[in-house]
Amino acid sequence: MAGHQVIIGSRSLDRAVEAAKVIAQTAGRPVRVSGLSNENAVSQADVIVITVPFAALVETLRTVKTKLRPGQVLVNVSVPLETAVGGRATRTIGVWSGSAGELAASVVPNTVGVVTAFNNVSAELLKDLSKTVDCDVLVCSDNENAKKIVLDLVKAIGGARGFDAGSLENSRTVEQITALLVSLNIRYKAKSTGLRITGISPVS
Amino acid sequence: MAGHQVIIGSRSLDRAVEAAKVIAQTAGRPVRVSGLSNENAVSQADVIVITVPFAALVETLRTVKTKLRPGQVLVNVSVPLETAVGGRATRTIGVWSGSAGELAASVVPNTVGVVTAFNNVSAELLKDLSKTVDCDVLVCSDNENAKKIVLDLVKAIGGARGFDAGSLENSRTVEQITALLVSLNIRYKAKSTGLRITGISPVS
Repeated sequence: MAGHQVIIGSRSLDRAVEAAKVIAQTAGRPVRVSGLSNENAVSQADVIVITVPFAALVETLRTVKTKLRPGQVLVNVSVPLETAVGGRATRTIGVWSGSAGELAASVVPNTVGVVTAFNNVSAELLKDLSKTVDCDVLVCSDNENAKKIVLDLVKAIGGARGFDAGSLENSRTVEQITALLVSLNIRYKAKSTGLRITGISPVS
Repeated sequence: MAGHQVIIGSRSLDRAVEAAKVIAQTAGRPVRVSGLSNENAVSQADVIVITVPFAALVETLRTVKTKLRPGQVLVNVSVPLETAVGGRATRTIGVWSGSAGELAASVVPNTVGVVTAFNNVSAELLKDLSKTVDCDVLVCSDNENAKKIVLDLVKAIGGARGFDAGSLENSRTVEQITALLVSLNIRYKAKSTGLRITGISPVS
């Protein structure tokens, strides 16, 4: 909706193309969205956003690893929810690297800028184009340029505000907030709990 | 300011009395605040709020343990910041029990209702009586009655909203948010960063 060219990647080309069609229909006006295999999507993208369940994170990154190019930005949205091992979405599992973001960074070449972002934004909220996104986006990375690119992308989402949440290791907290929001969703019978940071304003 | 009777506890009676005096002066109108030794404060209180640095948490609880009575509420505000071992306030250390709240619960008798709350509320904000507290309070406990008592206390703080953040194990995330807010304070040159939950309203 912000005018960016979007490529949906999937293990299955058919499902990628189908997902792109659904998005184009939801948009209700011409948008630049297409579907490709994960490998081809990664080859063509400047910014790669990975949103697979945590159990599939490392394997998915391994299948596209050889297609990654220096200077690309990899945004990890995946959170180590306990569901990855059959548990609850209100809990996380321990990750040796510290977080899913740091685990992702350990798999891809260090010429790729790995960023943690969007983990706390409800998909329900993003899908409903009639609503502004009443949620801030905490952005963590050890690559300042990659962080800036993602903070700029956040500005295109009406209502959302991006905050520089520091180095990639801070993903540990940002990812766990997702489990807390899931637990609030359940307890308060909601679908799209989010969070706002108070006391500061994003640097424009 | 809400009319509750407040007892300041300290290892040193003199320092407790002095702190109570400063609070009474800051209030600018008659308030019910006094200072006692930790042991005597715990003996007299219905709700005990522990705000010591994490390094002193277990030792402090041990000194007052024999004074605790069944039905009392213990609110742990202490967060396992890395400063406890000479590190940074933007990081936490791992606690075998999972969190400071769960560690506190492991030290005191299980007839005391242990609650996690106020960990994310800036002391700077609370001290400035001219400001409303633009921050929500996430409240975790395995004792529903204790949780309700603390959620009621939150209502007396102008601006703050209390949310039932589930069982005591969720303290793991709530406590880590403090380190993230400290890191935002540093990065954005602020003193009182907080957070608001969006998409739901507190149950009144």
